[in-house]
Amino acid sequence: MPVDLSKLAPPQLRLAIRRGDFTGPTCGLCPGYAQANLVVLPQRYAYDFLLFAQRNPAACPVLEVSDAGARRLSAIAPEADIARDIPRYRVYRDGVFAEERLDVADLWQRDFVSFLIGCSFSFEMDLLEAGIPVRQIEEGKNVPMYITNIPCAPAGVFAGAMVVSMRPIPRELAIKAACITAAMPRVHGAPVHMGTPEQIGIVDIAKPDFGDAVTIRSGEVPVFWPCGVTPQVAVMLAKPDVCLTHAPGHMLVTDVKNINLKY
Amino acid sequence: MPVDLSKLAPPQLRLAIRRGDFTGPTCGLCPGYAQANLVVLPQRYAYDFLLFAQRNPAACPVLEVSDAGARRLSAIAPEADIARDIPRYRVYRDGVFAEERLDVADLWQRDFVSFLIGCSFSFEMDLLEAGIPVRQIEEGKNVPMYITNIPCAPAGVFAGAMVVSMRPIPRELAIKAACITAAMPRVHGAPVHMGTPEQIGIVDIAKPDFGDAVTIRSGEVPVFWPCGVTPQVAVMLAKPDVCLTHAPGHMLVTDVKNINLKY
Repeated sequence: MPVDLSKLAPPQLRLAIRRGDFTGPTCGLCPGYAQANLVVLPQRYAYDFLLFAQRNPAACPVLEVSDAGARRLSAIAPEADIARDIPRYRVYRDGVFAEERLDVADLWQRDFVSFLIGCSFSFEMDLLEAGIPVRQIEEGKNVPMYITNIPCAPAGVFAGAMVVSMRPIPRELAIKAACITAAMPRVHGAPVHMGTPEQIGIVDIAKPDFGDAVTIRSGEVPVFWPCGVTPQVAVMLAKPDVCLTHAPGHMLVTDVKNINLKY
Repeated sequence: MPVDLSKLAPPQLRLAIRRGDFTGPTCGLCPGYAQANLVVLPQRYAYDFLLFAQRNPAACPVLEVSDAGARRLSAIAPEADIARDIPRYRVYRDGVFAEERLDVADLWQRDFVSFLIGCSFSFEMDLLEAGIPVRQIEEGKNVPMYITNIPCAPAGVFAGAMVVSMRPIPRELAIKAACITAAMPRVHGAPVHMGTPEQIGIVDIAKPDFGDAVTIRSGEVPVFWPCGVTPQVAVMLAKPDVCLTHAPGHMLVTDVKNINLKY
């Protein structure tokens, strides 16, 4: 008999994932709890990556960094096994996608450092709570993401342009959406731009670089937030011999309540 | 004829310091502009230190990290020379104070990484503006600082207890002071505690571990903020062969307006 996953607390959901009982996207699970992006790199890349995050905190808000080799975290999900508690992982070799996996325990290296990065799922709950529509949820799609012409501050081997996620917001609610998300800097914070996609180098709003196109209705403004795909793109450009990430939409569900990312 | 230093913009003040025309504490200079703590470490310590900061952001809010060997910054003070534009430096060898200097250009190593860390001077201006007294300014003293029993999250070779600064605030203004400073997380943010010093391991409020004791008047509450001396203490405990810092009260005056640390 299938378990009602939506009723599970984060540790129980992670155990279900670890057992292989759930392999799908995590959107909507454990409402109220933050979900995190994962980037795993060999230690020799870790300083440059942490510095890249420090210099680009809106696109790369680090929630926690593991000790080298550890598959455990201490702050955001103390019981989690980083190598098994995410529903799907992606493996990149020399900057190129190699394979998708349900767990990465047998690939784990003693020099792996895990970076857990804040995710916009956290602020979308606040937007919905405030009566602001979140189109890709309404349409059952992935959020559309675009590579912009806004340069990131480089750090060592890592550099690249900022990637943004876009949500169309009714004009009269757009500033409110900006203010609500500004209160959550650890999950990307305020938008980086709204309206006029061409000013940030987006040629065709109907053709996102990642994710799915969504409907922009009359009277709506496209609002652009810094996106956690930014560091992934920077990592791929640097072509590390190995890098693990979560698969898009398949996140680490943490024990941290979203509200505690505000204060 | 002496220049009126209080009229100088940050780049001009830094040039005066570089020329040796000013060697005093920077408190009160360039009002409205953020000042920063300096910690310089050889690159082999830089990852652990940056991770320590990531894990203890309230005590160690990093404003900028230089590239290895660079005496230049790119974000908070693009014209500054890190090795000459602070009025006084301290040199520590194997974790022990070795000497104080007016510049450290001749000590500079190609592997030095500079960490510029936010400073409570920035939020004190907001407190004063809101009519909240700042006692050590009134009394012309250094802020009192105490080593607490609150452990920092360790990172590699760095560990230690949180150091706090204390300001006595009239009871009816204490929560307001907490809220005002909470809006500035990049300069330590909200207090970590107020009242009852013994609950955070402070045995005698009249005997600070660093800085000067200040008067606590009847009806006032001691309010404790995470302090930038925390990472300095962690560094000294780790006994790196060499570490440079600013001398207490002699900070890097940046080009960043305090108000821009809020948003």
